[in-house]
Amino acid sequence: MNIGFVGLGTMGAPMAGRLLEAGHDVAVHNRTREREVPLAERGARRAATPREAATGADVVFTMVNDTPDVRAVAEGPDGVLAGLAPGATWVDASTIAPDAARDLADAARAVGAAALDAPVSGGSEGAERGTLSIMIGGEAAAVEAARPALEVLGATLTHVGPAGAGQVAKAVNQVVIAGTYAAVAEGLAFALAADVDEGKVLEAIAGGAAGSWGLTHRGPNMLAGTYPLGFRTRLHRKDLGIALEAAEAIGVPLPLAAQVAQREVELIRRGFGDEDVANVARLAREAAGVDPASGDD
Amino acid sequence: MNIGFVGLGTMGAPMAGRLLEAGHDVAVHNRTREREVPLAERGARRAATPREAATGADVVFTMVNDTPDVRAVAEGPDGVLAGLAPGATWVDASTIAPDAARDLADAARAVGAAALDAPVSGGSEGAERGTLSIMIGGEAAAVEAARPALEVLGATLTHVGPAGAGQVAKAVNQVVIAGTYAAVAEGLAFALAADVDEGKVLEAIAGGAAGSWGLTHRGPNMLAGTYPLGFRTRLHRKDLGIALEAAEAIGVPLPLAAQVAQREVELIRRGFGDEDVANVARLAREAAGVDPASGDD
Repeated sequence: MNIGFVGLGTMGAPMAGRLLEAGHDVAVHNRTREREVPLAERGARRAATPREAATGADVVFTMVNDTPDVRAVAEGPDGVLAGLAPGATWVDASTIAPDAARDLADAARAVGAAALDAPVSGGSEGAERGTLSIMIGGEAAAVEAARPALEVLGATLTHVGPAGAGQVAKAVNQVVIAGTYAAVAEGLAFALAADVDEGKVLEAIAGGAAGSWGLTHRGPNMLAGTYPLGFRTRLHRKDLGIALEAAEAIGVPLPLAAQVAQREVELIRRGFGDEDVANVARLAREAAGVDPASGDD
Repeated sequence: MNIGFVGLGTMGAPMAGRLLEAGHDVAVHNRTREREVPLAERGARRAATPREAATGADVVFTMVNDTPDVRAVAEGPDGVLAGLAPGATWVDASTIAPDAARDLADAARAVGAAALDAPVSGGSEGAERGTLSIMIGGEAAAVEAARPALEVLGATLTHVGPAGAGQVAKAVNQVVIAGTYAAVAEGLAFALAADVDEGKVLEAIAGGAAGSWGLTHRGPNMLAGTYPLGFRTRLHRKDLGIALEAAEAIGVPLPLAAQVAQREVELIRRGFGDEDVANVARLAREAAGVDPASGDD
C-alpha cells in the first residue's frame, strides 16, 4: 500500500516506522526536515511538502499537535488536501477539536477523498509496539480502506461513529483520565500522610471498586514521587482544553476536568509540563504535607 | 472453631451464613432479634446479648454501621468486651474511624484479647460469595488466629499494618471510589450529550488509561440512568465522612472527596440514598442536559 505520513514527532515517527516495517511504501514529511532522515535510512521516501507526501498515496496519515497544526499541513497549495487523489483516505491521528475534524472531513470530500479522525491513546510505547487504542470517526468504507494500515498501529480499533466521533471519544477519554488520576493522587497522598504502609494500602484496594489503570500503573510512581513518561502534562492540558471547549459548545459543564486543567496550569508554570500527567500527585502530596512546600515547617 | 457474630444486616447476615456453611459453630446476635431466626434455622445458636455471643468464642465478629454502633455492641456490661475470653480475637468488620479502631484494640488488649479492624469491600454480593476484599489492621498473631474464619469471607486479605491501618485503607478506598466514579460520570454524561454512540465511546476508552472498575462495571448503568445496588450512597456518604474527618485530623485536605460528599448530600435529600453510589451520574446527566431538571426547557 502507498502511504504518506506527515508529522514525525514522538508518536508519528514510531508509527511511520511500523508502517515501513510492515512492508508498506511510505513517503514521510516533517516540518523540521531532519526528522525524516532516520526513516529514509530505513527505506522511506522523503517528501518535500505534505502535498507531495499525499500525492499517489492510498492512505495519508497526519500526526501533529493541535488543530492549527493540522490545518497548517492540510490546507494551502502545499497541503495534504492539494495532493490527495480521488478515492484516497486521509487519516488524521492528531487530537483536535471534533468540529475541526468535521470541517476537514468535508474538505476531503470536496476533493473526492475520504477523511477519518483517528486519535490514539497508549503513548509512545503504544506507538512503538503497535498497541495503540485508536478511536475512529468517519465513514465505514473509509475505515475499511485504511484498516490494513490502522491494524499495524493499533491493538484496538473502535469505529465510534461519523466524522468527529473519534475526537469526541478521545475528549471523553482525557476527561475521565483527568478525574481518575486526580482521585488516585488524592487517595494515595492521604495514605502517605497517614501512619500506614502506603504500598499495602495500594495493594489492598487495587483489585476492588477503587481499581483503575491509573491506580495500578501510575499509583506506584505517585507513591514514589516520580513521574516518568507516559503522557506529557502539557499535551494532556491541551487535550483538556479541546474537551472543555467542545463540551461548553453543547452546554455541558465538566467541573472535575476544569479543576484538573487548572492544576495542570500550575504544574506547567512550575516546569513540570514535560513530566507524565500522573504528576497531579505532586500537588496532592504537597497539600497533604508529604512533600515540603513553601510555608510548611 | 467457635465463632460469635454480632450484626446481621445486609453484610453481616451472609457473612455469618458462610461461616456456618464452612462448618464453624456460630453464635449470632442482632439488635433486632428476629434477624437471628433465619441463621438459627441453619444451625446457629442465638445469643441474647453481644456479651453472650462473645462468651466462649475463639473469634468474634462485629459488623455494624458506624463508630457509635460498634461502641454500643462492644462496651458496657452486655458488650463484646465483657464476654471476650483471654486469648480470643475480636474482628470488627465495620467501617469506622481509624482512631476509634485503635481505642477499641487497646480495650481488647486490656481484657487479654486481641482486636483486628477488618473493614471489607465488595458489597453484599461479595459477602454472599465469600469474595470480599478485607483490609486488616492489628497484630500479625491475631491475623493468623482469625485467618481460618477470614478466608471463608474474603478472596483478598491484606494485612495493611497495626491497629487502625485497615480502616485507613478503607477510607482511602472510599476516597478513590468517590473521585473515580465522579470522573466516569462526568465523561459519560459528556458522551451522552454529544452526538455520538455513547456505548461505542465506553468501549473505545475502557481498555486504556481511562479504564477503571467503575467505568467497566458501573459505566453501562450510568449510560442507562439506572443505579441498582451495589453499594448504597448513604453508606458511602457515611464512609466519606469518616475519611474526611480522619484526614482533617492529620491536616490532609481531600478536595475531590469533599466535593463528591456534597453531591451525595443532595442525592440523599432527593431520595436517592439507597441507590448505588454510581448515581453520582444522576447529577452529571442533569448538568449535561441529558435528563430534564427543573429550569430546563
